[in-house]
Amino acid sequence: MCVLTEQSENLSETGLVETQYLTFALPPASFLLQNGERLSPVTIAYETYGVLNADRSNGVLICHAFSGDAHAAGHRCGDLKAGWWSNMIGPGKAFDTNRYFIICSNVLGGCAGSTGPSSLNRQTGTPYGLDFPLISIGDMVKAQKALLDHLGIETLLSVAGGSMGGMQVLEWMASYPDRILSAIPIATSMKHSPQQIAFNEVGRQAIMADPDWHSGNYYGRPLRLRGLAVARMVGHVTFMSDMSMNRKFGRQIKGGIRKEKFSSDFEVAGYLKKRGEDFGKRFDANSYLYLTKAMDYFDLVQEKHLSEVFKDMTARVLVIAFKSDWLYPAYQAQQILKACKLAGLAATYCEVNSSYGHDAFLLKSEELTFLTEHFLGQISRERGIC
Amino acid sequence: MCVLTEQSENLSETGLVETQYLTFALPPASFLLQNGERLSPVTIAYETYGVLNADRSNGVLICHAFSGDAHAAGHRCGDLKAGWWSNMIGPGKAFDTNRYFIICSNVLGGCAGSTGPSSLNRQTGTPYGLDFPLISIGDMVKAQKALLDHLGIETLLSVAGGSMGGMQVLEWMASYPDRILSAIPIATSMKHSPQQIAFNEVGRQAIMADPDWHSGNYYGRPLRLRGLAVARMVGHVTFMSDMSMNRKFGRQIKGGIRKEKFSSDFEVAGYLKKRGEDFGKRFDANSYLYLTKAMDYFDLVQEKHLSEVFKDMTARVLVIAFKSDWLYPAYQAQQILKACKLAGLAATYCEVNSSYGHDAFLLKSEELTFLTEHFLGQISRERGIC
Repeated sequence: MCVLTEQSENLSETGLVETQYLTFALPPASFLLQNGERLSPVTIAYETYGVLNADRSNGVLICHAFSGDAHAAGHRCGDLKAGWWSNMIGPGKAFDTNRYFIICSNVLGGCAGSTGPSSLNRQTGTPYGLDFPLISIGDMVKAQKALLDHLGIETLLSVAGGSMGGMQVLEWMASYPDRILSAIPIATSMKHSPQQIAFNEVGRQAIMADPDWHSGNYYGRPLRLRGLAVARMVGHVTFMSDMSMNRKFGRQIKGGIRKEKFSSDFEVAGYLKKRGEDFGKRFDANSYLYLTKAMDYFDLVQEKHLSEVFKDMTARVLVIAFKSDWLYPAYQAQQILKACKLAGLAATYCEVNSSYGHDAFLLKSEELTFLTEHFLGQISRERGIC
Repeated sequence: MCVLTEQSENLSETGLVETQYLTFALPPASFLLQNGERLSPVTIAYETYGVLNADRSNGVLICHAFSGDAHAAGHRCGDLKAGWWSNMIGPGKAFDTNRYFIICSNVLGGCAGSTGPSSLNRQTGTPYGLDFPLISIGDMVKAQKALLDHLGIETLLSVAGGSMGGMQVLEWMASYPDRILSAIPIATSMKHSPQQIAFNEVGRQAIMADPDWHSGNYYGRPLRLRGLAVARMVGHVTFMSDMSMNRKFGRQIKGGIRKEKFSSDFEVAGYLKKRGEDFGKRFDANSYLYLTKAMDYFDLVQEKHLSEVFKDMTARVLVIAFKSDWLYPAYQAQQILKACKLAGLAATYCEVNSSYGHDAFLLKSEELTFLTEHFLGQISRERGIC
């Protein structure tokens, strides 16, 4: 039997949660991807928090960022660590589980329960590896739509997410405008700049330079995948700000300069190395490649006029950026706002005054909480929801 | 016989140059390093341009950045590529070789002719590898001082350099204030921030994660050292600005999205990969470790009050930063200015309006040229030099 201890109760009030799995597109059916390839079957791992109301109108979809998963809030049995957005999701929180039915699913191509490159390829009896087809942000969202169909949710009260999660929000706005009443894209962009592509490319090259990677056929082998740790390290640097790193680490050296040459003796270096190694243990290197490439190829604008991007939408939009976020700079959020305004939408832009860089969207923030809570509250009041 | 072709003449007017070598601290003598260890012998590769005047007062020392070398200007025999700062050094240029005697040497610990980890360890008969002692920016400058002693230059008209070169300039100001009349630290810092350390650490980890690196004992083996290429890639991203990358690459994909998965198809990705691979062929991976660590450990301030840093100096100082340089942000240059002013020095600070990021100090810039030319001109007029 699984019970919550007092300790875990204090960490989050959502209580015990369980990851569920939906499998669809079973043979002979298949799931058509944007590039024309097909997947069969497709499994999506997801969690829900709160209760779906009688007219199924209080659903809010949370889209996770690159390294996130379906476990956004509460505690899973035996796991003391609360979900990745538990400061935002729960009773009385910004995404109030007393009022809304919150859904979060692991993205297609991921490695936390949903079908991805580490999944079994039924045609070969081995994990896909690089035989997994290239997936897009559009494919991720299409799989989320299949999950909502399964849950019987025709229209979402809102869809929200940061970073790669924000790209999924934008994709919902552009591709399924009739299925959302509102959207909250956070710290994100309609398309990656060359600088964003460049940092992702460094990560991919670090992984592919690692002989342990074996061209993606490393499953079942005992290995370290050190390239993945290096990839995560560079990612981590881009998630923080100069100021937050100064505050957190300064130039502190653990126990003074060590005799061993080139040890990660600066606290910032030791921290990054540890985070990189931990990540290497929990994340799939091939998913790293597929997901970063999906982000880099994502481009909602392409040859279109900016006014065309969200032309079919009527949803209300809250665009959020963070002042110190240099990976997804505010000008990219302002472009989203501009596209909304050119499409005649009721859209608001807020630049949250955080010093934590891109990471800010995952951290406890009064401003982010307040903005989200009031935005959702207003829409649900107007629509007579809850 | 080596002659300049018309083509190379057009590239630079400094003409043919030759790298020279000074070897000192021959056994039984030795070169004492800051950490108490000793090196013997020490060779320093250097080049000079222009003519030393009769009273040996027109010497200007140029300090190179991390991946630079002694070949700052002109053409070496058989080499069409001009020196790395040939747009700044030459007849009638900012560092006018008609007026000044310019010296540039490869740093101690480097891999372009000066003693470094790839040099022969006379005690073992093999390259040093990681047996090479940790060197500091102070050690590099002490070796430069030995070169100046050899050239018979007691006092430098100026010492100038950007990035790691700028750190050497600052070290000259703090350690040998009586041997310089002026100094031009460019795009540099009195100490690395945790963010700067972090990017260097990513590079080091990429190198050390590469099995080809063999704990630094890779000399004489046929290898690819792909970790070094990855390290250089991340470096390159930090040298450019978001704006300059947008201008140079946009989201262009060479020949459209390729069938091969995870090829470096975006132009920015292909460019970085090529630059990384080229760098891997010309640079020593161990020097990468030693030089980045020297930069990270460099800290002119430490526990001192800012007014103490340059307290013994009387030289004139021109501090330069670049608006779009986010790797060495302007606030670090302003700290240098503040330390100068608190020491009562005649110091000027200029923020050059370039969009090229950290790379700006290496690129042709009217403002940088003008600032340098007039600063040097004024000092040499006042001192009656040339």
